[in-house]
Amino acid sequence: MFVSETKLRVRYAETDQMGYVYYGNYATYYEVARVEALRDVDLSYKLFEDTGIMMPVLSLSCNYVKPAKYDDLLTIKTFIKEMPGVRIHFYYEVFNEAGVLLNRGETTLVCIDMKTQRPCGSPAILIEKLKPYFTE
Amino acid sequence: MFVSETKLRVRYAETDQMGYVYYGNYATYYEVARVEALRDVDLSYKLFEDTGIMMPVLSLSCNYVKPAKYDDLLTIKTFIKEMPGVRIHFYYEVFNEAGVLLNRGETTLVCIDMKTQRPCGSPAILIEKLKPYFTE
Amino acid sequence: MFVSETKLRVRYAETDQMGYVYYGNYATYYEVARVEALRDVDLSYKLFEDTGIMMPVLSLSCNYVKPAKYDDLLTIKTFIKEMPGVRIHFYYEVFNEAGVLLNRGETTLVCIDMKTQRPCGSPAILIEKLKPYFTE
Amino acid sequence: MFVSETKLRVRYAETDQMGYVYYGNYATYYEVARVEALRDVDLSYKLFEDTGIMMPVLSLSCNYVKPAKYDDLLTIKTFIKEMPGVRIHFYYEVFNEAGVLLNRGETTLVCIDMKTQRPCGSPAILIEKLKPYFTE
Repeated sequence: MFVSETKLRVRYAETDQMGYVYYGNYATYYEVARVEALRDVDLSYKLFEDTGIMMPVLSLSCNYVKPAKYDDLLTIKTFIKEMPGVRIHFYYEVFNEAGVLLNRGETTLVCIDMKTQRPCGSPAILIEKLKPYFTE
Repeated sequence: MFVSETKLRVRYAETDQMGYVYYGNYATYYEVARVEALRDVDLSYKLFEDTGIMMPVLSLSCNYVKPAKYDDLLTIKTFIKEMPGVRIHFYYEVFNEAGVLLNRGETTLVCIDMKTQRPCGSPAILIEKLKPYFTE
Repeated sequence: MFVSETKLRVRYAETDQMGYVYYGNYATYYEVARVEALRDVDLSYKLFEDTGIMMPVLSLSCNYVKPAKYDDLLTIKTFIKEMPGVRIHFYYEVFNEAGVLLNRGETTLVCIDMKTQRPCGSPAILIEKLKPYFTE
Repeated sequence: MFVSETKLRVRYAETDQMGYVYYGNYATYYEVARVEALRDVDLSYKLFEDTGIMMPVLSLSCNYVKPAKYDDLLTIKTFIKEMPGVRIHFYYEVFNEAGVLLNRGETTLVCIDMKTQRPCGSPAILIEKLKPYFTE
């Protein structure tokens, strides 16, 4: 299993009049978290797109346990639990500074060859970088 | 069952560099759809908050079937399939102008008494307005 | 002078914890307003991009007179006061349902030929459609 | 004069289909920059609100010099050039990693006493912390 942690501070723009982070913004937090997870193993999503593979999201689910609030310094744990293929599953857990779990979610992405616009396998470099985390 | 339809045009702000609507923006589309669904039966979410009940989202799920694109005039169908109690479930289907299903999702909201900050039943007026849709 | 009016309802997503529309969201409101202003004369910004002209924003200014609030049904007046050339100036005024001015702003856009990536004149069709509003 | 620098990475959510950062997102970048500028002198905007002073934005201006792009690591310089009073002026310059100026802007905020809802002087602690930067 591959696990990564990234930190992110709640912006005023992301709050709503309930005084909480607006529920739709967690999707953006997940995006930041998975991009930084890849950067942890010297990969960049930008590079994937530059080499012709894009990874749109197929599905998203999100559970709101407790509200995140303005200026909270959040820690997001990102998990890859199975070796990616055509699809890549990311799991997320969002904690506040006190270590309290605020939110939990997952996304499934699919690799698309930008030339053919058809699904394709994960980039070879991604497989290579993740392999060490999945050998018994 | 209660069904409502609302239309909404994709903003440039909502696209991303893939040329699609960013995946996190569907949560906002769902919000617009459920608020307009309530307005269809002369209810307003604003009124609920003004009378002391807020309805934060407990869970969200989202399936991305085909991408919505800039300037698309979307139709969002909102379904309430069970009478609301402490929790309210909304289901959504998003179509483009050609009637093609682009996205499907659901949200669960919980009624919170803003004074006590504890869960409470749905507003009486909501129950009353929805009752006709659930009698056999 | 060309004037157009468009209506737009404030989304929960657009509020912040002050209970106001977040100040950055007016840029999006202006975008909606100018796109709908063009649609009023049967033009679409999408069409401009499809025919190879994009119009990035060069400058934005925004004056916040009174706060817009959740669920407000705003009216945005969009003004084009001079015939567009390489640059197009839009002016905006945002009113609430009581007709109170909430916000005032302007944007300058520049026409860019997407092939050469260089500034170019306004699309001929735009000039043609706007001409009737500028003849003495 | 008080100057502060903060770094921020462009999110996918913040791009649009031009492949640039959407023009409305700079307002959020400025928000992050001024909040981090205050944090540099051990102040927090959150604390101001908690002690009853909010600071809505009165005006915003923004000049788009060159586009910021996805995954760019931006540096934002925030300047306070005059001692704050009832109003606080912030100036911003946004640079990419190559040190190229992409964007320049300013915002004027006004201090509001949340109890009376009327303008008030800047928080004493803000004056105190900034004084060293403005003595000749």
